[in-house]
Amino acid sequence: MSDYTDLTGTERSFGDAEAEQAVRQNDRQYVFHSWSAQGAIDPLPVAKGEGVRFWDYAGTEYLDFSSQLVNLNLGHQHPGLVQAIQEQAGRLATIQPAVANDVRGELAKRIVEHSFTGARSVFFTNGGADANEYAVRMARQHTGRQKVLARYRSYHGSTATAITMTGEPRRWANGVIDANVVHFEGPYAYRSAFHAESPEQETERALAHLERTIQFEGPETIAAIVLETVTGTNGVLVPPPGYLPGVRELCDRHGILLICDEVMVGFGRIGEWFAYQAFDVRPDLVTFAKGVNSGYVPIGGVVISEDIHRTFEQRPFPGGLTYSGHPLACATGVATFDIFEREGILERVRDLGSRVVEPRLAEMAAKHPSIGEYRGRGLFWALDLVKDRETREPLIPFNASGEAAAPFTAVVNACKAAGLWPFAAGNRLQIAPPLIISEADLVTGLDIIDAALDVADGYTTGA
Amino acid sequence: MSDYTDLTGTERSFGDAEAEQAVRQNDRQYVFHSWSAQGAIDPLPVAKGEGVRFWDYAGTEYLDFSSQLVNLNLGHQHPGLVQAIQEQAGRLATIQPAVANDVRGELAKRIVEHSFTGARSVFFTNGGADANEYAVRMARQHTGRQKVLARYRSYHGSTATAITMTGEPRRWANGVIDANVVHFEGPYAYRSAFHAESPEQETERALAHLERTIQFEGPETIAAIVLETVTGTNGVLVPPPGYLPGVRELCDRHGILLICDEVMVGFGRIGEWFAYQAFDVRPDLVTFAKGVNSGYVPIGGVVISEDIHRTFEQRPFPGGLTYSGHPLACATGVATFDIFEREGILERVRDLGSRVVEPRLAEMAAKHPSIGEYRGRGLFWALDLVKDRETREPLIPFNASGEAAAPFTAVVNACKAAGLWPFAAGNRLQIAPPLIISEADLVTGLDIIDAALDVADGYTTGA
Ligand SMILES: Cc1ncc(COP(=O)(O)O)c(C=O)c1O
Ligand SMILES: Cc1ncc(COP(=O)(O)O)c(C=O)c1O
Repeated sequence: MSDYTDLTGTERSFGDAEAEQAVRQNDRQYVFHSWSAQGAIDPLPVAKGEGVRFWDYAGTEYLDFSSQLVNLNLGHQHPGLVQAIQEQAGRLATIQPAVANDVRGELAKRIVEHSFTGARSVFFTNGGADANEYAVRMARQHTGRQKVLARYRSYHGSTATAITMTGEPRRWANGVIDANVVHFEGPYAYRSAFHAESPEQETERALAHLERTIQFEGPETIAAIVLETVTGTNGVLVPPPGYLPGVRELCDRHGILLICDEVMVGFGRIGEWFAYQAFDVRPDLVTFAKGVNSGYVPIGGVVISEDIHRTFEQRPFPGGLTYSGHPLACATGVATFDIFEREGILERVRDLGSRVVEPRLAEMAAKHPSIGEYRGRGLFWALDLVKDRETREPLIPFNASGEAAAPFTAVVNACKAAGLWPFAAGNRLQIAPPLIISEADLVTGLDIIDAALDVADGYTTGA
Repeated sequence: MSDYTDLTGTERSFGDAEAEQAVRQNDRQYVFHSWSAQGAIDPLPVAKGEGVRFWDYAGTEYLDFSSQLVNLNLGHQHPGLVQAIQEQAGRLATIQPAVANDVRGELAKRIVEHSFTGARSVFFTNGGADANEYAVRMARQHTGRQKVLARYRSYHGSTATAITMTGEPRRWANGVIDANVVHFEGPYAYRSAFHAESPEQETERALAHLERTIQFEGPETIAAIVLETVTGTNGVLVPPPGYLPGVRELCDRHGILLICDEVMVGFGRIGEWFAYQAFDVRPDLVTFAKGVNSGYVPIGGVVISEDIHRTFEQRPFPGGLTYSGHPLACATGVATFDIFEREGILERVRDLGSRVVEPRLAEMAAKHPSIGEYRGRGLFWALDLVKDRETREPLIPFNASGEAAAPFTAVVNACKAAGLWPFAAGNRLQIAPPLIISEADLVTGLDIIDAALDVADGYTTGA
């Protein structure tokens, strides 16, 4: 039996070192990789993906607890998505954005219908970064104001405005490209910037901090506040009760728009279509990508409120792109809605999150002194690893790499050696498997993490 | 017999007003369109595309002389591209950028092998705008300088840095987002900014203007000069002899990088893999999108010189995106190379351009006083329409719309009424059919344009 199909369509078996070498060689010779020193990486050649797993050329199997880049919500090679691509390719692979197209309209309709009250239309982009670029542009045009407030501990993408809004080290080397971006701090009770002693106090003080920032910057100069509804790569930071409604209230008071970046958490990650639906808040603009079609074809977009849409009824929107509303991508988005409903994905996510993951993480936390805090929701969790539970000092320093990151790297390597591909970020083991994961696979993955944490414990003081 | 397949997979015939209405309604209700006042447009519902043609729901057939947005180089539903999508979807639709993937490496290899001497690697993006964003980032990182020189009469995309580099009205409403962009004027002999009386003089004076700009801005502050090798939407401006080598020489003299934006002209449009290959110039970075796979799956990228690649051997490149090197997109890129070779696309383009298009445009120019100048190469041409041949006053004013644009709109409408979908830009009828067009179809389209120019002649003084 064959294990995978190669580029020429030939059926192949794992263990063919020559095939692997050919892939590695083209990669090392010709492919320039994101976020990397090209000479310091050795990308793993991947031969095959299926469901929640992928395989290298030796046949080593990895259980994907990262859903690739937290985009593969429906797993590898979901038959419904593969079929949608193949059928749409046969119908009409592409058409320009200036015409009306059936599947583009259908996806826009589904998204609006699953969005907030007052949502009106969708502007489609190619990914998450440009979704954020265009949302900010709409906000600036709509309000006539230029400044945008964004948070530290955030990632919003890597094009000029998106990277400037990003509030983590990936921004640093880029300097300030869009000068009208200001950063503030969000709530993070476990490492409170506000010396708070309860979630309620964290909310109250984080809102006071935001309000002062607004006052200092000048309310009439601020077009929008941009935030990840649940912060993703920077820590699975779930907003404490009242925080998002409080932000909304500040926005309303000052005529500022609220942009929720749901690129990572939209489409089921926390058990809701959109994460804001769990936090009693109505955004003005919502950006999405990844989960909308599990990344099978590049697409992203902005959900637009009726109010903002109306601004552009007679005034042209000054932005656009060749692949806006790409039919092939839209077809997989429509299929995603069908699959979510058919397979009861949202219910599964909520059930597995509360019944399987949360209790198991509580158990691990009781056992492993290296777990400072566990937090999350649905199928999106973080283990905030520490050197010392008392002081809450992170297992490795902020933005550590190389030697300084060795304790954390050891944990990650232990996971990989046991067949789990983790979502590792800073000092955190994060958990974000495909939403179709079976309970058995989920438990297997948690078992592996549990065991790997023994390694972390070795670097941790106390018990 | 059925005319097209609808969203549900049902075979349908043209003329079904209800089907059309459903598509139009979803579009008007839910889809937010690029560059538009949403209430002022009425996007044509398109039912089907095949080869160089597409059809609306009534069955009206359009010969596409615009290749959609000048991306559809291999036409609609090319069997080789459709098959590549369907096969890759069945193998592995997507995988993260951090691993090595066979088809990604293969496409990078093909692109590098068809690129300039000293080309080393490819960074893949989602489209043209982000390709330009990342090329500029590489140039800034590599040189340690911040400023970028870009030309008026240019389009580079719509994300923050790309739109700031753009040198035409679509930029205006966006203000300056990336403050380190400076514009200069390029050669355009027919409307010389330099009062030149020959192409040679235009080259010489345009280079002197650029050199002054470099001196005034400070050579040591300039990271890159960005230009469309052949300016696309802004007029099919073919560089006069010596201009691009002259720019290269200025770059070399001052340690400035040369970025060729080949998003519109790359992959065969003028009968070369890349347009710079026709103009005796070696770029440092080349951006591409559109033609690389005819836009069947969103993709773009940057071809990187060995020198610049080496900068990022030990130093991390501060940029990236979730869908970099997307396998489904890459598969259609690889298929594009195969098809180009199998069908002799480049040879066809050169032959049709010089044997069919150019002589016919010369004939039209002799006949129609409204043609101020025709210019182009391969399957990329512009008719620069004028009110008066003596004064060269454009048929409509710069950036005209509504009433002021009526004479030009009348020409465009005459084309559409005769079944031709033109590439209309400013005062120019541009010609950019799919590169697979047959000689007969090409002649048919030129016949339609010829007839439509009678309308333009009606607005033109003299003969
Ligand atoms: C919250 C968030 N916003 C935006 C992005 C950028 O998306 P993309 O990589 O598609 O540009 C990401 C990607 O990880 C993200 O997590
Ligand atoms: C020369 C040029 N550069 C960049 C772009 C932007 O490409 P995209 O629309 O894919 O962002 C275009 C699009 O028309 C273009 O013609």
